Amino acid sequence: MSTEPRPAVVLLSGGMDSATVLAIAVAEGFRPHALSFRYGQRHLVELDAARRVAAALGAASHRVVDVDLGAFGGSALTADIPVPKDRAPAEIGHGIPSTYVPARNTLFLAYALAWAEVLPARDIFIGVNALDYSGYPDCRPEFLEAFERMANLATRIGVEEGSLRIHAPLLRLSKAEIIVRGRELGVDYGLTRTCYDPAPDGAACGRCDACALRLRAFAQLGLTDPAPYSSRTVG
Amino acid sequence: MSTEPRPAVVLLSGGMDSATVLAIAVAEGFRPHALSFRYGQRHLVELDAARRVAAALGAASHRVVDVDLGAFGGSALTADIPVPKDRAPAEIGHGIPSTYVPARNTLFLAYALAWAEVLPARDIFIGVNALDYSGYPDCRPEFLEAFERMANLATRIGVEEGSLRIHAPLLRLSKAEIIVRGRELGVDYGLTRTCYDPAPDGAACGRCDACALRLRAFAQLGLTDPAPYSSRTVG
Repeated sequence: MSTEPRPAVVLLSGGMDSATVLAIAVAEGFRPHALSFRYGQRHLVELDAARRVAAALGAASHRVVDVDLGAFGGSALTADIPVPKDRAPAEIGHGIPSTYVPARNTLFLAYALAWAEVLPARDIFIGVNALDYSGYPDCRPEFLEAFERMANLATRIGVEEGSLRIHAPLLRLSKAEIIVRGRELGVDYGLTRTCYDPAPDGAACGRCDACALRLRAFAQLGLTDPAPYSSRTVG
Repeated sequence: MSTEPRPAVVLLSGGMDSATVLAIAVAEGFRPHALSFRYGQRHLVELDAARRVAAALGAASHRVVDVDLGAFGGSALTADIPVPKDRAPAEIGHGIPSTYVPARNTLFLAYALAWAEVLPARDIFIGVNALDYSGYPDCRPEFLEAFERMANLATRIGVEEGSLRIHAPLLRLSKAEIIVRGRELGVDYGLTRTCYDPAPDGAACGRCDACALRLRAFAQLGLTDPAPYSSRTVG
């Protein structure tokens, strides 16, 4: 890189997708500021994973913002509704699952936008994925395009300093392709956590939708997922 | 009303605009759920005002959500930057003022959207105002239209249950017209608080941009603002 790295905000959950996105932002020459959320999720262990990933991949800074989503209820990730288990990957992605968090990506991108204005940064990275996607409306490309358009009308940086961009580099990749790309860029997936319902020691359940998709992807590549599991089911 | 009132989410700051919007939502036959934010603002007195206004106008419920905006800094409303004082109304509205909070309406509408999904409600009310508007990009009609479009792509209620609407009934009203409409609907403006920099007892400063616009509007109507002030300057 001959020029000063441009700052970017990277949404970082601690899962494998956002870790890969952070590595991609670095590889594209950005100076990434990582943003995570404490939003009443049961799987707080992902925030420890986010901290390890941000440090390992050299984020310029990392902030964890408290988001008061639990106040509204309505999701198995934040409320007392059972997480679906032991569904085959083929069953996942039909209809909107109970683990859907209302307006989650809208809220997370809105916080990223606020931070982007302050830094300032004109680039926001998010690890959404439409191919292996699990039925969430806010993971689709048409949502991201509409958010980007809105963001350019909403903010000083959009209005005065030219176009603000939402980058979703995983949008059209399968989970297996994401792993291949991340390994090329040196992502240690042993640091990442994906499970919706981990054990108290942080071990993944191996049975929720997120675990099922992740384990299948490693299996497709003939690899063993380096993250800890309490049980493993590959559908 | 012959039918059951439809639920709506109404953003309620405690100022005169959002109080008027709440009264309009009631008059239009909605069952309003009021939503306020604690976002590190210096003028917390507005939250007490929001509680009084929600009760007086018969909101179905009222929630105050903590928003971690101060973590990013960047605004005179949340950071340690002086609030502009003693500007004539004619000076207000040129450029983006230091009291701009980054991505504020995007964030507030995102929370309203999350609550709308859970209730469920298909209507969100916001008291933005483009005529007397103070230079904020996220108070313009093109922003609201872009947010509405994005919201319909982001959410289960948008995708599965038809169109979600952002109502901004004050968009093209002057502050004086807002007061006239609110008085017709029985809004007690003595309960509302607008000031960016109130005294510890809650009295408005009478000198910041928000006070200047409000006092001018009451003066134009030949009325006395019923809210308490520590000093009054009408430009």
